[in-house]
Amino acid sequence: MDDKPLASWRDGAVRNALLDYVARVTTPGSPDFLPPEQRIATFDNDGTLWCERPYYTQVYSALNALVLRAEADPSLRTVQPYQAAVENDLSFFLQFVAEDRVQELVHLLVEATAGETQAEFEARGEEWFASARHPLGRLFSEMTYAPMVELVELLQAAEFRVFICTAAGMDLVRLVAQRIYRIPRENVIGSNVMLAWEEREGGPVLVRTAGIVPPFNENGGKPVNIQLHVGRPPVFVAGNSDGDLEMMRFAAASGLPFLNLLVHHTDDEREYAYDAGAERVLALAASEGWTVVDMARDWERVFA
Amino acid sequence: MDDKPLASWRDGAVRNALLDYVARVTTPGSPDFLPPEQRIATFDNDGTLWCERPYYTQVYSALNALVLRAEADPSLRTVQPYQAAVENDLSFFLQFVAEDRVQELVHLLVEATAGETQAEFEARGEEWFASARHPLGRLFSEMTYAPMVELVELLQAAEFRVFICTAAGMDLVRLVAQRIYRIPRENVIGSNVMLAWEEREGGPVLVRTAGIVPPFNENGGKPVNIQLHVGRPPVFVAGNSDGDLEMMRFAAASGLPFLNLLVHHTDDEREYAYDAGAERVLALAASEGWTVVDMARDWERVFA
Repeated sequence: MDDKPLASWRDGAVRNALLDYVARVTTPGSPDFLPPEQRIATFDNDGTLWCERPYYTQVYSALNALVLRAEADPSLRTVQPYQAAVENDLSFFLQFVAEDRVQELVHLLVEATAGETQAEFEARGEEWFASARHPLGRLFSEMTYAPMVELVELLQAAEFRVFICTAAGMDLVRLVAQRIYRIPRENVIGSNVMLAWEEREGGPVLVRTAGIVPPFNENGGKPVNIQLHVGRPPVFVAGNSDGDLEMMRFAAASGLPFLNLLVHHTDDEREYAYDAGAERVLALAASEGWTVVDMARDWERVFA
Repeated sequence: MDDKPLASWRDGAVRNALLDYVARVTTPGSPDFLPPEQRIATFDNDGTLWCERPYYTQVYSALNALVLRAEADPSLRTVQPYQAAVENDLSFFLQFVAEDRVQELVHLLVEATAGETQAEFEARGEEWFASARHPLGRLFSEMTYAPMVELVELLQAAEFRVFICTAAGMDLVRLVAQRIYRIPRENVIGSNVMLAWEEREGGPVLVRTAGIVPPFNENGGKPVNIQLHVGRPPVFVAGNSDGDLEMMRFAAASGLPFLNLLVHHTDDEREYAYDAGAERVLALAASEGWTVVDMARDWERVFA
């Protein structure tokens, strides 16, 4: 890493706003000074810290889990959702997204992989991350945005506790968060499979059930789960979609000096360009004067 | 604080076991060395970090909440559980405990105070902690065990992340954890009221509902919620009752060098002496060779 902070960011209003905010809230005597205990930052993951296109990383990982199950039990090959996974029929899954039934899809996937122990889940996930590649050719764990990783580092150096707050399964992200973001497992908040404590012959284990711990971690679920995990509102929020709107409002309602950073995907040469799913938060950021990253304009490089 | 570590502990096998464990897992090259990311400690609160007799601190706090409600709305004075609180009729509440229906009591209390915003809850709780006194005469927040606070400090200095894992409501404990234990809010795990995100005229708020986030944080719920909040098993566990048995088994099943510390209440001169509710874990600690604190013998002083 370069010694210059935010080295992958181009000089300009957004980079200046970030450096200025951090200076204001950490300079003793500044009217915006925040004691370290109040320096809480929450980052969305998909589309904010790493690439979410063409599909969420978790979708690829879940398909892999279904294929492995169907290999172990061939009778599943003609049963949905396993059949669609084995035949690589993405349309089956995308239909849920198109019909705005994503939570239904999540429940279906969670049900289809229930019964694994937590240790089995983690071993499978680590193996998948070690070899699975994004369509652009890199490992999924290498699809992180260099400028955002530098921003996490800047905040941590300024005594912020930085949390990930993702709609995806928190257990999946926890497998790589320390390595790729230097964010420890306990600072990853996400949607979560309900676990059960089971006494078995070889000793007790945690088993993954078919239930989801409420609330699902998007929209109003994000502030609720931030309160659950952190116990106070964030003062720095980074996101990229309407699912992040409420946690940005949570920071704005904290009564503390805050910065909301919206990553706008404008770069179809180096990444993807799209507004879909971010229409409401883009409008709110404009009317509230929140900080909007124009990827094509503000980032010197996208991936590390 | 004294410069000597664990200054309030008497020399002996228990103090030695604590110092020896910390040395073994933090000395590079030691066969028991643990990298800092695996140094997770979880402490029960009631009866482990602070006094739980004659009743849990949360019971006193909940009674106060009921009385305040009945003062604001006198029609509640003849409705349970408000009436019992107003009349200071503890037998109403203790009957639930006697009949092993504690979770039912918790639901009743949560229901009776539902509708408060999180900010209102925190303001009320802080006010209560500022003045409410334990029957022994001290503020409730001063009923902490000096030897255990020193132990938290020893572990933190050795790069452990120390968590509280309490069956009580986590929001109550979070109000004082930083001040009395130097444990930040986000490191407090407990039973938890389900929150709702509500848009109001003055802006969004978090509202406390009548629901409890599953699972209730005792017995098998403790390992489940440790996994939820931390993402890995603890290697150091302190507890004092059967409700802590499963999180001790979680540490023992981790495959890592662990220490389970059971606080045995043997001191009816300086505190209270009782085995009730700890019968199973005392037997297990004996058979497994876990470390048992004899308060009367091992602690030079009890309260700070």
